[in-house]
Amino acid sequence: MALPVTYDHVAQAAQRLDGIAHRTPVLTSRTLDARTQAAVALKCENFQRTGAFKIRGAYNALTRLVADTEATDVLTYSSGNHAQAVALAARELGVAAHIIMPENAPTVKLDATAGYGADIITYDPEATTREALADDVATTHGWPIIPPYDHPDVVAGQGTVGDELLTDVPELDMLLVCCGGGGLLSGCAIAAKERAPGCTVIGVEPARADDATRSFHTGRLHTVHNPDTIADGARTPSLGEVTFPLVQAHVDDMVTVSEAAIKRAMYFLWTRMKLVVEPTGALATAALLSGAVGAPGQTVGAIISGGNVDMARAAALFEDV
Amino acid sequence: MALPVTYDHVAQAAQRLDGIAHRTPVLTSRTLDARTQAAVALKCENFQRTGAFKIRGAYNALTRLVADTEATDVLTYSSGNHAQAVALAARELGVAAHIIMPENAPTVKLDATAGYGADIITYDPEATTREALADDVATTHGWPIIPPYDHPDVVAGQGTVGDELLTDVPELDMLLVCCGGGGLLSGCAIAAKERAPGCTVIGVEPARADDATRSFHTGRLHTVHNPDTIADGARTPSLGEVTFPLVQAHVDDMVTVSEAAIKRAMYFLWTRMKLVVEPTGALATAALLSGAVGAPGQTVGAIISGGNVDMARAAALFEDV
Repeated sequence: MALPVTYDHVAQAAQRLDGIAHRTPVLTSRTLDARTQAAVALKCENFQRTGAFKIRGAYNALTRLVADTEATDVLTYSSGNHAQAVALAARELGVAAHIIMPENAPTVKLDATAGYGADIITYDPEATTREALADDVATTHGWPIIPPYDHPDVVAGQGTVGDELLTDVPELDMLLVCCGGGGLLSGCAIAAKERAPGCTVIGVEPARADDATRSFHTGRLHTVHNPDTIADGARTPSLGEVTFPLVQAHVDDMVTVSEAAIKRAMYFLWTRMKLVVEPTGALATAALLSGAVGAPGQTVGAIISGGNVDMARAAALFEDV
Repeated sequence: MALPVTYDHVAQAAQRLDGIAHRTPVLTSRTLDARTQAAVALKCENFQRTGAFKIRGAYNALTRLVADTEATDVLTYSSGNHAQAVALAARELGVAAHIIMPENAPTVKLDATAGYGADIITYDPEATTREALADDVATTHGWPIIPPYDHPDVVAGQGTVGDELLTDVPELDMLLVCCGGGGLLSGCAIAAKERAPGCTVIGVEPARADDATRSFHTGRLHTVHNPDTIADGARTPSLGEVTFPLVQAHVDDMVTVSEAAIKRAMYFLWTRMKLVVEPTGALATAALLSGAVGAPGQTVGAIISGGNVDMARAAALFEDV
C-alpha cells in the first residue's frame, strides 16, 4: 500500500506555512559538542508561534480543509500544544475552533487556548474519553476534526521542521526526534530521508512511555495507558494508523531515556543554553547527553519540540537534578 | 579632547572576535510587537559564550594586551559575568587569569569561573574594596588589569553587539541598551551612530540604581552605593572615566524602570519568548513593555545582555509577578 505522506506533501506544506510559521533558528553549543563528542544542531521549535511545532501541522491541515470543503468550524481534542495550535490556525483562517479539553486541564492552558478565540468544550475525563466525545460533537454539528497527529496533512506540516533543519545543516549524519503520537517523528523522517538519504533518523521516548519503541521493534502496535512521565507531550497512548507505517518505513531506530535523563537535559538546556524547553522538548537532547545514542565525530540534529512549561513546575523539577 | 573609542576600534574588535564570540541571533515576537506597537528586534547575548556579552570586551582587551606586552598573566575583579569572560578569554589565549571575587560570591559563580581554569583570589568585602586589593595584587606581581567596563578595548569589544545588530537590522530607528558601568551602552552607541546616524540610542537603568541616568541629565558623575536592585549587573557604582564621556557624546537619553517592571519583562521573556534572561538582561525590554519608552510604528532594537541566573532565584522572583 502506498504511504499517505511523501516528501512532496512536506514541500507543499512548507509553501503553505511560509509567512505563517516562524522559521525557527538552529543553535549550537561548544559545551554540548564537547560533552557529546559530536557537532550538535538544535532546531528550536520552542521559539515557534504558540511555543511549539504544532502550529505547522494544524495550519497545514486546516488550510487544506478550508480550501477543500469551505469549512467554517473545526473541532479538535487536546490538553496540550495542539489545542493552542488549532486555535491560532483557525483564527488566522477565519474559522471557528472548538477544542475539547479535560475540565482538570491547567488553567494556564485553558486560558491560552481561549486567548486565541477558541470555544473550549470541557469534559470529565473520568466519565468519557476525548475521542468518544469528539465523535459525538462532530456528528451532532457536522464539524470536521483535526486530530493531534494521526492525519496526513498534520504529519506533512510537522515534517517542515526537519525540512528546515536539513536546509540549514545539509550535512546531517543523524537526526533525533522526540516521539509522542509520531507526527513530528514521521514527518521529519520523511524530510530527512529525502534531503539526506544517509542520515540516520532515531525517535526518542521516555522509558515510562515506550509504546512506540516497542511497536517499532516488534512490528505490531503497542499502547500505554496514561504513563507517568514528566514529558507530557509523550503521554499519547500509541502511534496511529497514519504514523505507525510511516515510522516503520522511514525511522532507523527508537531509543528511550529515563525521567532523570530528561530532567538533566532540560536543566542543561535552561542553564547552559538559556533555552526554556518543556520536558518533551528535551527528549532528543537527553538521548545524546545520557549516552542512549552515541554519535562521536558526527553532525547530529536534535529537535527541541516546544517550551510550554509552567515556571513553578520547572523549578520544582530542577530541585533534585 | 578626542574620545578614546571610535567606530574603527569597534570594527577592529569585530575582526578579533571572529571565530571567538558567537554571532548571536536576533529574535522577534508578534506578541511583543503587538504589546509595544513597534517592530522589536531582540539581540540575544544570553546565547553568547559564558552566557553574556562580556566575553567580547574581555577577549578584545586581552588579545591586544598579549600582542602589545607579551603578558603571561592577567588580573581582574568581578563577582559576575566579567569574571567568567576574562577566565575564558585567558584560556583561549594561553594566559593565566587571576580573578578577585568576594568570598561570599555564589558558589555557582566561583565554580563557573574556576571551571575555565582561572585562579580565584577571594577577599572579605567588609574589610577591603576589590579595587584596592586589585591595585595591591597588580603592583606586587606586575600583572595588568582588565577592568569590567572602564577601558577603551573593553568598550570597543562590547560595541560589536550593536554592530552585529545593525548588520542584521539596518533600519533601526531606536536602540535600547541596559546600563551598569556603561561599557555595553557606550560601545553600542558608537556602533549605532556610525551605522544608522538617525537611530536614537537610549540607556536603561533600574530606578534603584539610577546613577548613570542622573549623571547623564546633570552632566556630572553621580554614584550609587550597593543599590538594592534585582538587576545585579547594574549595581556598579557609577559610569567610568572612559564610559561617561562616551555616553555623553553618543547616547540620546537615559530612562529608568522599576523592579516590578524588570520582573514582568523577565517573566515575559521566559514564558512567552522561551528565553532564559537574567534581570539585567531584561532591562531594555522592560523599558518598552512598561511604557518608559514609547516607539509606536518604529523598528526598535533591544539588547538582552545575558542569561546567567540561578533557576531557584528566578523561580522565586516569578512568585509575585
